[in-house]
Amino acid sequence: MTIGIVGGGQLGQMLALAGYPLGQDFLFFDRSADTPAGRIAPLLAGEFHDEAQLAELARRCDVISFDWENISVAALRRAARGTRIAPPLRALGVAQDRLAEKHCFQRLSIATTRFAPVDSLASLSQAVERVGLPGMLKTRRFGYDGKGQYLLRSRADIAPAWEALGSAPLLYEEWVPFDYEVSIIGVRSRSGAIAVYPLNRNYHVDGILRLTLAPWRAPQLARAARRSLSRLLEHFRYVGVLTIEFFVHRGRLLANEMAPRVHNSGHWTIEGAVTSQFENHVRAITGLPLGACDARGHSAMINLIGSMPDARRFLAEPGLHWHDYRKEPRHGRKLGHCTINEATASRRTARARQLLPRLYPQLALRP
Amino acid sequence: MTIGIVGGGQLGQMLALAGYPLGQDFLFFDRSADTPAGRIAPLLAGEFHDEAQLAELARRCDVISFDWENISVAALRRAARGTRIAPPLRALGVAQDRLAEKHCFQRLSIATTRFAPVDSLASLSQAVERVGLPGMLKTRRFGYDGKGQYLLRSRADIAPAWEALGSAPLLYEEWVPFDYEVSIIGVRSRSGAIAVYPLNRNYHVDGILRLTLAPWRAPQLARAARRSLSRLLEHFRYVGVLTIEFFVHRGRLLANEMAPRVHNSGHWTIEGAVTSQFENHVRAITGLPLGACDARGHSAMINLIGSMPDARRFLAEPGLHWHDYRKEPRHGRKLGHCTINEATASRRTARARQLLPRLYPQLALRP
Repeated sequence: MTIGIVGGGQLGQMLALAGYPLGQDFLFFDRSADTPAGRIAPLLAGEFHDEAQLAELARRCDVISFDWENISVAALRRAARGTRIAPPLRALGVAQDRLAEKHCFQRLSIATTRFAPVDSLASLSQAVERVGLPGMLKTRRFGYDGKGQYLLRSRADIAPAWEALGSAPLLYEEWVPFDYEVSIIGVRSRSGAIAVYPLNRNYHVDGILRLTLAPWRAPQLARAARRSLSRLLEHFRYVGVLTIEFFVHRGRLLANEMAPRVHNSGHWTIEGAVTSQFENHVRAITGLPLGACDARGHSAMINLIGSMPDARRFLAEPGLHWHDYRKEPRHGRKLGHCTINEATASRRTARARQLLPRLYPQLALRP
Repeated sequence: MTIGIVGGGQLGQMLALAGYPLGQDFLFFDRSADTPAGRIAPLLAGEFHDEAQLAELARRCDVISFDWENISVAALRRAARGTRIAPPLRALGVAQDRLAEKHCFQRLSIATTRFAPVDSLASLSQAVERVGLPGMLKTRRFGYDGKGQYLLRSRADIAPAWEALGSAPLLYEEWVPFDYEVSIIGVRSRSGAIAVYPLNRNYHVDGILRLTLAPWRAPQLARAARRSLSRLLEHFRYVGVLTIEFFVHRGRLLANEMAPRVHNSGHWTIEGAVTSQFENHVRAITGLPLGACDARGHSAMINLIGSMPDARRFLAEPGLHWHDYRKEPRHGRKLGHCTINEATASRRTARARQLLPRLYPQLALRP
């Protein structure tokens, strides 16, 4: 089967690396072939709204998926008519719009932060009134890794926040002094079977994920997260991998956002789970049975951001797995990740503590 | 770094799948691009003795390796002058010639079966006299998966055996009623570090490997196998993965042959070891530190031969990993393999027993 993937980044590359052993072929679609996936699979180059190229992708593929969210749902829907798309574009459409996403969480009784839509300076003032301070003004669309956000601490921030982001449709959201962040990743097959990975605990700095510890042992939170994820998977009659990110606030989960795709916080599953999120996504969208999501040992995944450390300094670390996406270094850019795996959670966390200052000398990141 | 691999079969494909996350590039060389590695990496097509193409491979690569043995050492040595080759061609040359291999085993005090070179009907008669019956007449070169062999049970077989194989340089070898077969796989880095995987127990039918159980718990044999492997690795100042296959006869190891490459009996290391044989080969030949060879749980690897079973019937098996090389079906051809992984050896063996008759309905193969 040939799988078309819109987006050819590291997520796409890892999908191909997991799909090749299953006998699948891949064709990627991205703006340039000089991408991680383009190094290991054929790639069609074009803008994400280029319907002629998307139609060519559809013609050459048995199923189409995507490795990131900022693509044109309308163009893909029109271009791919007749070709199966998974996950469903309806889920992608909701994930692309923070307001639709919030409404979807509410409708499915998935607790989330208070919010109000904003489309003018006046409505921002009203939203601040209603939701309270501090709060976060966010673009409804095309935000990732903390981009397109403005923190309002007082009413004096209203005008500059509007100045900064007012050209796009917006959402004002309660800022919750959360204790930490977790995510849950699961997969639904074409026959409706659902499998869910253990809970991930995520550490961000400057809005970018730096560290994931998994499984994160918090049984009540894990149960609640699984329930929310299953509701979303059923609601969309979803096929493929779906992720929800949560804030943990006073022992309760607040859904922050959903990602209708394989997720950075699930990279540990390559070495740390029986079946990786990438293999399970491929299995799901090609109609194969799902693999087990059980953890193998205890993993820590550390993102390599901005510049790649010298692999030779780290590959001698016992059981350390290195993933170099071979991207051009750039401030704040995800260039790779590494994963360590240990027999116990405490040993895993201790090793993450040792490794972090060597990989991030500039950060005080304390798992 | 760009790694050139002579041979583009499934071993080459699995090397690339393991090397991409380390940020390596690959260029394969094979007779046709329609090979497992050619599906996932660029490939130069040419005959294995084509020095112009081999020189082009050398020009474009930082290091050259190989995924099978039946290549021209002389052509590669001439063509690749100035480009690093690993493993050393001296080891490949010895492995290509059963007589040189036997002498090498003897020189390093690695026990092997009795043997005699054969280059005429008369010398075959003398060899049978000296070594005894039954015995195996084998071509010195270009044999694999049991090809190029003739079993002699009585003196009446001498003439037909010579008739069948006499056009090539030959070796006559004692036929040992061995109890079973094992193999050991290890790796030596450019700095001389050595790491060795646990022992594999191998089950062949019609000369083709069908099943490997690993780790195979036989501590004395494992120690002896490791000693022999280390001797060979040091002898050749080897860089990369090396395999020795042994017969087990009356509780002792008899070296059958060495393979200067990643090996079919090590496929289980992809899911069943901390670092796979493929990753460790890539690490070694690119000058990176080696990864740990410890087993994760207990694995059974089953080769899929002649025709591919329907993956959908097997992928729902818990913890089963499927590898489809996407080769044209052909009698006796290795088309894929699958690996299961369990927490205990007895559970692993029990599951292999359940799976084998489903995958090989025609065989009575009893682990």
